[in-house]
Amino acid sequence: ALLQAIANQFDYDLLNGKRIVITAGPTREAIDPVRFISNHSSGKMGYALAEAAADAGAEVILISGPVNLHAPAHVKRIMVESAQDMLDAALHTADNCDVFIGAAAVADYRPEFVSTNKLKKGKEESMEIRLIKNADIIATIAALPNKPFTIGFAAETNDVLNYAREKRLRKQLDMIIANDVSIAGIGFNSDENQVTLITSTDEISLPQTSKRQLARQLIEHIAPHLPTTR
Amino acid sequence: ALLQAIANQFDYDLLNGKRIVITAGPTREAIDPVRFISNHSSGKMGYALAEAAADAGAEVILISGPVNLHAPAHVKRIMVESAQDMLDAALHTADNCDVFIGAAAVADYRPEFVSTNKLKKGKEESMEIRLIKNADIIATIAALPNKPFTIGFAAETNDVLNYAREKRLRKQLDMIIANDVSIAGIGFNSDENQVTLITSTDEISLPQTSKRQLARQLIEHIAPHLPTTR
Repeated sequence: ALLQAIANQFDYDLLNGKRIVITAGPTREAIDPVRFISNHSSGKMGYALAEAAADAGAEVILISGPVNLHAPAHVKRIMVESAQDMLDAALHTADNCDVFIGAAAVADYRPEFVSTNKLKKGKEESMEIRLIKNADIIATIAALPNKPFTIGFAAETNDVLNYAREKRLRKQLDMIIANDVSIAGIGFNSDENQVTLITSTDEISLPQTSKRQLARQLIEHIAPHLPTTR
Repeated sequence: ALLQAIANQFDYDLLNGKRIVITAGPTREAIDPVRFISNHSSGKMGYALAEAAADAGAEVILISGPVNLHAPAHVKRIMVESAQDMLDAALHTADNCDVFIGAAAVADYRPEFVSTNKLKKGKEESMEIRLIKNADIIATIAALPNKPFTIGFAAETNDVLNYAREKRLRKQLDMIIANDVSIAGIGFNSDENQVTLITSTDEISLPQTSKRQLARQLIEHIAPHLPTTR
């Protein structure tokens, strides 16, 4: 009943006229035509944010890595594979937006060389894959001259809040959403999450709830930071 | 109409009393709690074979890596993540079976060290992941003293038939099913496939068709190789 009351209180005009770009899901970094490096991100949190932002009246562009989720209603979705693809799509769309939320779990590194043929198992008992750093999408967006209100995530397994504070400052983010992915039942691939929202002035801990409900709460916390006119 | 006629001719008692173990899908080899190495296998071919074998009256155990497919009716499914998990499940179930079909795309290598904490992006512009060889599941099964009729796949991007012949001999397989994954529209993640079936005496090329239809044809080609009593 309480959740229903909160849901009913949601302001469906909160982001009217705002343009939001959200990245979601994992990226895949090719090793060869069949193998890749990826991560366990389900995309659920980013998709929930896209749905909540659209419910609040925003124009939403969702840049999504490979996930098994349907695009929410009234959301323009762009599917991508690699971190480089995601960066290209982000730069293409973020230029003219009010809010950029980087909810994707972007690969930090990619294989330096991508084999055009499938690598065959050799006799070698071991091998090495040399990885090179990917561009940092959220830091790139936060450094744009016409920077949107830029929100990142810090999904960590240890020392979560300290790392999130440091990451927010280092990447010049306006807000960072910290969550502990080592706790079963929240975070990666879960339907629930529990996060702490960190800005330059506030740290707000939001209790564990469904990603859908949490997304609406996050939108409500983001909205007051936006100028009333573009 | 032709396909329907073929479907109607399918012998639903063809594998009565037979026990079949089928592996399907990719494996995931952990780098740390959130990152992994995997491949583009959708599991569709292995799942189609499991369904066709069950339709033919066999008792079917499907050992599946992470895929987004429902277990076919009347199939006992065991979900696994890593190649080591899949090997354990295979050894546990293959001992007493008539046919073993390795349709999974098993990772040849896994990271030597798995970090228990999420690896943080450092300042390094590059890094190396050291990989060690996984056990060869199908060759392990084919080397069992009480060996089932053992069938492997060769999904290759170049020189497909030569590689498949060599692989069949090297791993002591009774049959290998070769397909060219470099051709768009067949193989990995497609709904159709086109394969060549290779035994010690025959090479039979099956035309492109749905994986479901192809699976039934494969079951019909496998059945004559089995002893009529166990």
